[in-house]
Amino acid sequence: MIPQNPVFIPGPTNIPDELRREIDFPTIDHRSSVFPEMLGPVLKGLQRILKTEIGRTLVFPATGTGAWEAAVTNMLSPGDKVLAARHGMFSHRWIDLCRRHRLDVEVVEESWGKPAPADQFERILAGDKAHAIRAVLVTHNETATGVRSDVAAVRKALDSANHPALLLVDGVSSIASMDFRMDEWGVDIAITGSQKGFMLPPGLAILGVSEKALDAMEAATGPRCFFDIGEMLKSNANGGFPYTPPVNLIRGLALSIRMLESEGLHNVFARHFRIAEGARRAVRAWGLGLCATETRYQSDTVSAVVTPAGFDATRIVNHAAEKYKVAFGVGLGDVAGKVFRIGHLGSMTDVMALSGIATAEMAMVDLGLPVRLGAGVAAAQEFYRASESDVHAWAA
Amino acid sequence: MIPQNPVFIPGPTNIPDELRREIDFPTIDHRSSVFPEMLGPVLKGLQRILKTEIGRTLVFPATGTGAWEAAVTNMLSPGDKVLAARHGMFSHRWIDLCRRHRLDVEVVEESWGKPAPADQFERILAGDKAHAIRAVLVTHNETATGVRSDVAAVRKALDSANHPALLLVDGVSSIASMDFRMDEWGVDIAITGSQKGFMLPPGLAILGVSEKALDAMEAATGPRCFFDIGEMLKSNANGGFPYTPPVNLIRGLALSIRMLESEGLHNVFARHFRIAEGARRAVRAWGLGLCATETRYQSDTVSAVVTPAGFDATRIVNHAAEKYKVAFGVGLGDVAGKVFRIGHLGSMTDVMALSGIATAEMAMVDLGLPVRLGAGVAAAQEFYRASESDVHAWAA
Amino acid sequence: MIPQNPVFIPGPTNIPDELRREIDFPTIDHRSSVFPEMLGPVLKGLQRILKTEIGRTLVFPATGTGAWEAAVTNMLSPGDKVLAARHGMFSHRWIDLCRRHRLDVEVVEESWGKPAPADQFERILAGDKAHAIRAVLVTHNETATGVRSDVAAVRKALDSANHPALLLVDGVSSIASMDFRMDEWGVDIAITGSQKGFMLPPGLAILGVSEKALDAMEAATGPRCFFDIGEMLKSNANGGFPYTPPVNLIRGLALSIRMLESEGLHNVFARHFRIAEGARRAVRAWGLGLCATETRYQSDTVSAVVTPAGFDATRIVNHAAEKYKVAFGVGLGDVAGKVFRIGHLGSMTDVMALSGIATAEMAMVDLGLPVRLGAGVAAAQEFYRASESDVHAWAA
Amino acid sequence: MIPQNPVFIPGPTNIPDELRREIDFPTIDHRSSVFPEMLGPVLKGLQRILKTEIGRTLVFPATGTGAWEAAVTNMLSPGDKVLAARHGMFSHRWIDLCRRHRLDVEVVEESWGKPAPADQFERILAGDKAHAIRAVLVTHNETATGVRSDVAAVRKALDSANHPALLLVDGVSSIASMDFRMDEWGVDIAITGSQKGFMLPPGLAILGVSEKALDAMEAATGPRCFFDIGEMLKSNANGGFPYTPPVNLIRGLALSIRMLESEGLHNVFARHFRIAEGARRAVRAWGLGLCATETRYQSDTVSAVVTPAGFDATRIVNHAAEKYKVAFGVGLGDVAGKVFRIGHLGSMTDVMALSGIATAEMAMVDLGLPVRLGAGVAAAQEFYRASESDVHAWAA
Repeated sequence: MIPQNPVFIPGPTNIPDELRREIDFPTIDHRSSVFPEMLGPVLKGLQRILKTEIGRTLVFPATGTGAWEAAVTNMLSPGDKVLAARHGMFSHRWIDLCRRHRLDVEVVEESWGKPAPADQFERILAGDKAHAIRAVLVTHNETATGVRSDVAAVRKALDSANHPALLLVDGVSSIASMDFRMDEWGVDIAITGSQKGFMLPPGLAILGVSEKALDAMEAATGPRCFFDIGEMLKSNANGGFPYTPPVNLIRGLALSIRMLESEGLHNVFARHFRIAEGARRAVRAWGLGLCATETRYQSDTVSAVVTPAGFDATRIVNHAAEKYKVAFGVGLGDVAGKVFRIGHLGSMTDVMALSGIATAEMAMVDLGLPVRLGAGVAAAQEFYRASESDVHAWAA
Repeated sequence: MIPQNPVFIPGPTNIPDELRREIDFPTIDHRSSVFPEMLGPVLKGLQRILKTEIGRTLVFPATGTGAWEAAVTNMLSPGDKVLAARHGMFSHRWIDLCRRHRLDVEVVEESWGKPAPADQFERILAGDKAHAIRAVLVTHNETATGVRSDVAAVRKALDSANHPALLLVDGVSSIASMDFRMDEWGVDIAITGSQKGFMLPPGLAILGVSEKALDAMEAATGPRCFFDIGEMLKSNANGGFPYTPPVNLIRGLALSIRMLESEGLHNVFARHFRIAEGARRAVRAWGLGLCATETRYQSDTVSAVVTPAGFDATRIVNHAAEKYKVAFGVGLGDVAGKVFRIGHLGSMTDVMALSGIATAEMAMVDLGLPVRLGAGVAAAQEFYRASESDVHAWAA
Repeated sequence: MIPQNPVFIPGPTNIPDELRREIDFPTIDHRSSVFPEMLGPVLKGLQRILKTEIGRTLVFPATGTGAWEAAVTNMLSPGDKVLAARHGMFSHRWIDLCRRHRLDVEVVEESWGKPAPADQFERILAGDKAHAIRAVLVTHNETATGVRSDVAAVRKALDSANHPALLLVDGVSSIASMDFRMDEWGVDIAITGSQKGFMLPPGLAILGVSEKALDAMEAATGPRCFFDIGEMLKSNANGGFPYTPPVNLIRGLALSIRMLESEGLHNVFARHFRIAEGARRAVRAWGLGLCATETRYQSDTVSAVVTPAGFDATRIVNHAAEKYKVAFGVGLGDVAGKVFRIGHLGSMTDVMALSGIATAEMAMVDLGLPVRLGAGVAAAQEFYRASESDVHAWAA
Repeated sequence: MIPQNPVFIPGPTNIPDELRREIDFPTIDHRSSVFPEMLGPVLKGLQRILKTEIGRTLVFPATGTGAWEAAVTNMLSPGDKVLAARHGMFSHRWIDLCRRHRLDVEVVEESWGKPAPADQFERILAGDKAHAIRAVLVTHNETATGVRSDVAAVRKALDSANHPALLLVDGVSSIASMDFRMDEWGVDIAITGSQKGFMLPPGLAILGVSEKALDAMEAATGPRCFFDIGEMLKSNANGGFPYTPPVNLIRGLALSIRMLESEGLHNVFARHFRIAEGARRAVRAWGLGLCATETRYQSDTVSAVVTPAGFDATRIVNHAAEKYKVAFGVGLGDVAGKVFRIGHLGSMTDVMALSGIATAEMAMVDLGLPVRLGAGVAAAQEFYRASESDVHAWAA
């Protein structure tokens, strides 16, 4: 049976019908002129989404983890030192990937629920007079905790310390859903995937690479072939790929970008804020809090809801899946069992969000939590009703 | 842009993905053996859905109105007398169709919101000693008012009066969603379409025909060709159609029947009751009433909600469509402007229903009606939560 | 298993992917403003396809036979006299339909393989001084024999005889594939379906109606409701339908018209001629002839190939279906067993046609017919190669 | 415009409708129990396709090149020596990948058109008394030249030399189309992708790994994370993935395996042989030869056709694409301009193949090559006609 209810996991997101049919396409000859005509606008469109005029964009047939690997193996050499904070499952996993590639990671441990600590970064960078640190790694949106970090602040930390390290940013669950400004923030490598803000199935690792990063690439000795950024850029310049390209997903990405731009990036971000804010008000009406305690760091793509001490939050996810056939996200790592996550990114309307909020509510009542039916829904309704509508016109 | 929200009109219903892809099929040769292998199980399956063992089933490439026309032109002759009640837009239109085909319709006017009056029918039939009345017409579910009539009671009226008239029943918005018992109720012609309980797009007129009806057909002189039941049955018996068959929709109907039976007809009806009952409790929580005032006649496929006097109910429908991109049904005919309709039939889950209820709620508050946000949702949630889940497994 | 090979039946045709996905669409509210915005351009587009500026166009949820019934019941009254030729299965069936609707049909028997005899028509019309004949019926393209009649010549016959009869034309297997000029030829009712030149699944009866026909309609007393042209035109004028409209197929028809016009109607006709001419040259290279003996009447949508006397042509169709999984058309009626039919209309390229020709060739050799492998293919290749390519750009 | 003609490139292949709709699926929660239920049968099914009972199977969201990278980084350490032959573009690229990962590749240069030289391999291996060679690399099917190497012979070479090196085999364009016997041939790593014999879009790197390879993995120090086989096997054992899995393609692969097995692997191979043999006879009838000169090494998935000296073979590919909208493969590397390639693998019938052969024929005649129209087609028809039919029943 094919699911009838939307999913509320923090990615892969619900896929609009437009995109499902766009990638459901017969085989074309990827060595013919059709392919470059498809690829060119995608790479240009990605520049606009990432807000970079000088940075280069590229896609690999892989996932966000593959994009991380591309960043690390193309920009750095074994033994290089990098600076990163651990404040959620995904920043943790990025640190692990660096270590497997034999980088020397200086880890700042931060509470799960807090953003990357720009101030601590600044202190460490200022102290690194020898510029041993080659790169700073930031997870723009910690999908595990629903926390958005302040990339501009990290940039400022680098600038204040007058430090030449590269700035590598994981925007997997933020890009195309929340504002991202590659050039303005001086991001050297931006990383994302197809299955979040772009609303496609997984299968594309998407990267933005600054000029400074391209220079660093020359010196980097990390072994690479499948994820060789230089070779990919060279092939792309000739309208091709170094190996079989993921034609269908690239076709889908082309339409995804057209849809985002036809809605208007600004409106896309506003819609994500609206829907997220409704969910946050529902959480408050339930008498619960978010893992992301500070308002200004709360993510507009995922809300990690903290359940009362002693209650296993994962039960909500399992119960909702079994009884109501609705998927939420479980807590991961340090917050496993302590939070459940409501994903509200990508292809989502306020009406869809209300059905997720209503379901979470029923599940919590079923499991004995002191939540009043309709309370969260009413809080969200009141916000959705009063704020600008999410009416937007995608031109397929 | 392709709609993301479900529709809540009383048909055509939301179409499950399984059925959408089943009818999206390349052309086959309908004169090859593939077609009879497709058609046979469909006709047999329809017998099980209609609960008839002796009745014949058939489909025309048309709509429910076409099925009415088939019934009237195959069973009756110009000048024949028929008995019918007018208590909603669809019973009204059926009367009109009969008159265009030059039948003499004895109309019992009944309040819109009431079922077909079996008692009055009995009185009239008992008085018709000469058996001038050739057929009694019943609209099983008045889609305009959300009223389910008691077909068994009408059968009893015929039997009590010892009257030989045919019993013709419009089950367009009931069959495959609410219980229908062709043999037990002595229905001679049962009529429906593809776009309601069968969850397909419009395009099929579906009929069940009793043995008695087949006999009546011999005598009937109404001119017919496209809708000739005799010719269709003859062609079907040879595995064919008298003209180009609607292959794709027949393929879809085959899967629709398999899905309904894999869920279990009994469970399908129970699910429709559950979802409808949640909607009804929401209406009560809003302080509003249904057009169908008597509980036992309330439809499980559509609820016509009466709005306060002086308020134009159609505004809710227009407002919900514009602001929230959600479709409800307007009031028709005598109840235009007085009711708006929530369709809850076909491919629907309780979670989907909650999003419809939440939207209606917001629309009413937006328009100044004295409804409390979350009130209807909470009433529905409480019922959905406590009753059996709609978990079912369609085997595609 | 879903067929991999194209079909070569004379309709329903192969359906382009564009159209398959266009009709595979979620349910919309047909009472909302979305529907009139969809219907309007379709009705206007049909005028351009039929080449009428003053005629009205409409669609019913039915098939070509339904369109015939609409023409007959809306334009004529029981007892009216009509003139028609019988020269194939479809002209035969139209005569039958008229008789079922109690028309008095004057039948001109013509050889199967010949067009409608304009000269005989003229003689009869000239002799009908009282103008008892109310309508002349012409089958523009006899799908059973692959013969295209000369509608302009029939018009001339009417004009020469100064006869006011209506001209009713069945263009089911010609319209949108071969030139059709409703206004220039003075056609009063043009009839077609969705499943031929429009490349859609069956399910739409399409009509063009002249002003003169609209006048005749006023006087016609044939009973009608489902196929009531007047009521349909009235509903359409308000952006609606008298009953549930076939939304998905209407959506598909909108795109079909855009595709035909983006290729250019003239190019569509030229492509059909090219592909048909290749098939005809193949037939000649096989040493066989066509049922349509005169070149100028040979259809560009279907070729009925006459097999040697004593050989059952249907064996070719059955053998090709079983062994090669390719569908051709059998002979019907008087030419059953004498011809097999190659459909080459709708969504078809010369490359696809070659695979059909190659398959027919293998089937004939398998069955012992004195055909040389490759002979027909080579003749078609030579023509395709030398003539203008069918390169065309559909804008989906 | 969506292509109507099949492609004849040697992969990605034509995608059956069954598979297109199987991967066109709404998002599911990959952390729910649905995913392991999907993944398990896929991994087991891959064992049957690879014909291994003890080997482990796994998939990465990447392409065949990614599978090569996984093999090299998981099994070998920088500085390790490997033995490989260069006899086509793909064996060449594999050598290049090894060098980028700092392996010491002993390259045997072989003519393009010849298979991997098992005898030379044996000599070298026998001479390597110190067992410095850690792995032998074989390209089972050189897609660039249409040559199938004899993997069993290479195994025998290893055995004869009593050499413990690993046997790594690129089966990208052979597996699931031509017989592959992982256990019998003692293959340690088998590599393929989704877009060839499995008939899916690109996006999956598929591997089979022997027990001996798993042991070697422990010692290998190549840095890896995204392509870490050990971590993938561990996650898979728990029903998961180390990162976001390519759910849709895994779903598609499940059906692909069911389709292959419902046809019967033996029948799949026989069908590929039949279709290829028809193409080869066509080539001979054209008076041309194959790049693969020896019959027993000719590939059943792709035929590289050598054009007359002085003629640029790429013109055929460009001309066919432009004029006939049919895609063939160009020559690559050393044979660029000397051959054009006809891909005949995956979803292909003899009828489809004939349209490709007919098109190549027209293109060659158009370009002045001394080929007779119909000659190749007739040779292929004769073979298809006389041999067992490719009738097979996929159970979707």
